[in-house]
Amino acid sequence: MIKAYAAQGAGEALAPFEYDPGPLGRDEVEINVDSCGLCHSDISMLDNEWGFTQYPFVPGHEVIGTIAKVGSDVANLKSGQRVGLGWHSGYCNDCQTCNSGDHNLCASAQPTIAGHHGGFAEKVRAQAKAVVPLPEGVNPDTAGPLFCGGITVFNPLVQFDVPPTAKVGVIGIGGLGHMAVKFLNAWGCEVTAFTSSDSKKKEALEMGAHKVLNSKSAGELEAAAGYFDLLLSTVNVKLDWNAYLNTLAPKGRLHFVGATLEPLDIGAFSLIGAQRSVSGSPVGSPATIKKMLDFAALHRIEPTTEYFAMSEINEAIARLRDGKAHYRIVLKN
Amino acid sequence: MIKAYAAQGAGEALAPFEYDPGPLGRDEVEINVDSCGLCHSDISMLDNEWGFTQYPFVPGHEVIGTIAKVGSDVANLKSGQRVGLGWHSGYCNDCQTCNSGDHNLCASAQPTIAGHHGGFAEKVRAQAKAVVPLPEGVNPDTAGPLFCGGITVFNPLVQFDVPPTAKVGVIGIGGLGHMAVKFLNAWGCEVTAFTSSDSKKKEALEMGAHKVLNSKSAGELEAAAGYFDLLLSTVNVKLDWNAYLNTLAPKGRLHFVGATLEPLDIGAFSLIGAQRSVSGSPVGSPATIKKMLDFAALHRIEPTTEYFAMSEINEAIARLRDGKAHYRIVLKN
Repeated sequence: MIKAYAAQGAGEALAPFEYDPGPLGRDEVEINVDSCGLCHSDISMLDNEWGFTQYPFVPGHEVIGTIAKVGSDVANLKSGQRVGLGWHSGYCNDCQTCNSGDHNLCASAQPTIAGHHGGFAEKVRAQAKAVVPLPEGVNPDTAGPLFCGGITVFNPLVQFDVPPTAKVGVIGIGGLGHMAVKFLNAWGCEVTAFTSSDSKKKEALEMGAHKVLNSKSAGELEAAAGYFDLLLSTVNVKLDWNAYLNTLAPKGRLHFVGATLEPLDIGAFSLIGAQRSVSGSPVGSPATIKKMLDFAALHRIEPTTEYFAMSEINEAIARLRDGKAHYRIVLKN
Repeated sequence: MIKAYAAQGAGEALAPFEYDPGPLGRDEVEINVDSCGLCHSDISMLDNEWGFTQYPFVPGHEVIGTIAKVGSDVANLKSGQRVGLGWHSGYCNDCQTCNSGDHNLCASAQPTIAGHHGGFAEKVRAQAKAVVPLPEGVNPDTAGPLFCGGITVFNPLVQFDVPPTAKVGVIGIGGLGHMAVKFLNAWGCEVTAFTSSDSKKKEALEMGAHKVLNSKSAGELEAAAGYFDLLLSTVNVKLDWNAYLNTLAPKGRLHFVGATLEPLDIGAFSLIGAQRSVSGSPVGSPATIKKMLDFAALHRIEPTTEYFAMSEINEAIARLRDGKAHYRIVLKN
């Protein structure tokens, strides 16, 4: 039996919960959970905002732990090894997308917290392919949030071959955005943080932003016309996207890693005239997660975290709901 | 004096018109116009649909002719050379965009038919930089439409490094779309034409499409879920863009070279889940026009054209307005 924390219905408090994981699959590992980051998508899932949550629901998909058991076919991981597990806990490993290395886009990828019990637990299981060893130099205490929030903002830099000469704007300085600022600074880019918060302005500059623009100031957006090669939007509120498009240089890209359900309302002529793109992406593949971890180790990049005991999970959720997390919450066993 | 055809106001008939072009600029050439294609944007400009038409208005920006005079600083062109002139008749040649080879995106580029008299005339002038020689093997009688419509659909293949292994859909088989089908077939791609016209279906297959889908059939769109690497939209009507996005494979791109003024209404989650992009582009740079002409010569690609005498310009405009052009109209002196 695995001891975990589960909600029995949408929006309910988490409570101790035990489940029988059955026999370990040949391609699976079992991880002793040391810590697990709390991500905003845990709350979206808890509330069944996206309509596919299954209850009892065990959230947690930013796991750091050590391998406890390995399945008979697992060659790449061994007991005692320190690893991380993110949004996906398995892939089909057999489609054109997986075969191309884009496991994160596999139509049959298994989410760690949908139809599978997550990391707010003593143990969690996953397909070995979806579990990535922590390299030397990555601090396990802060590494959890790299496995979902971190890879979500790092992945586009790899996918679109963003050059270090790019001028990049990060829209929203929160759980995702603060990691984007740190990565982009180390990536060599000129980094502009878009925020409407004075306290975050100061912190963004400390984290590596070279400039800060007020995300709600039409005047500051207008003054930045034609400036950015890439805008990375981490917010889940509707902004004036055509005004943001106008700040893009020729061939610039507005890329969404956060989103609202409202349509984007983009004018085609905003795209055509200067050959601009609008795009989006989810988390990254295991290969890209490994690249991110090596890059984070080299540049000593860590999410800014605060800690709760795993038993304080409901307090942690309340704090994240209130928008008070600074900047990511990690729950420790 | 240069003899041309001009409209004196929005939507008016064209009538003979003479103007004094002044002294030839040092960086300019004067072209004896042999023929000039009629493009839908000539009509949009004639009607002042985009709000920046100046009258008297001389349309025509798909010029084929021979160099009559060269300015004192012009080294790359000489008298008697056969050339083409497209949407742009000059660039600043001094901004970061021009210096990067992206003259077509230069914010100060001079349109051939806005603030400048176009090619429905005996002669037309342009900056030598904007004039591209016709290579051997390109038929001058049909080449005019390559200089606006052709380059508009060819340019994205170069800009986005579209691989010959890509599965590409062309939305709308008209003045732009029929050239896209021909180019993409020679490019090596699997080409699907989207059209709702039975007669165009047959012709698209003859032009090089491998498949045809009904652009207005929700069922056929649904059956193509996850299939295309690139969709090139050449239409100027609003379609169900989210249904089209759904036909894109992971990392697929919906690219607009035609557009309505209505917002695109795109759902961010349609982009995020499978790392899709939506983009647009205008005509191409002189360097890309040269690439297109060499490619067209090698593969014997010609726009499908019909002809009018230059003096029949108003009849030609009426035919294009009626949607009867098959597929591009060229006016001959």
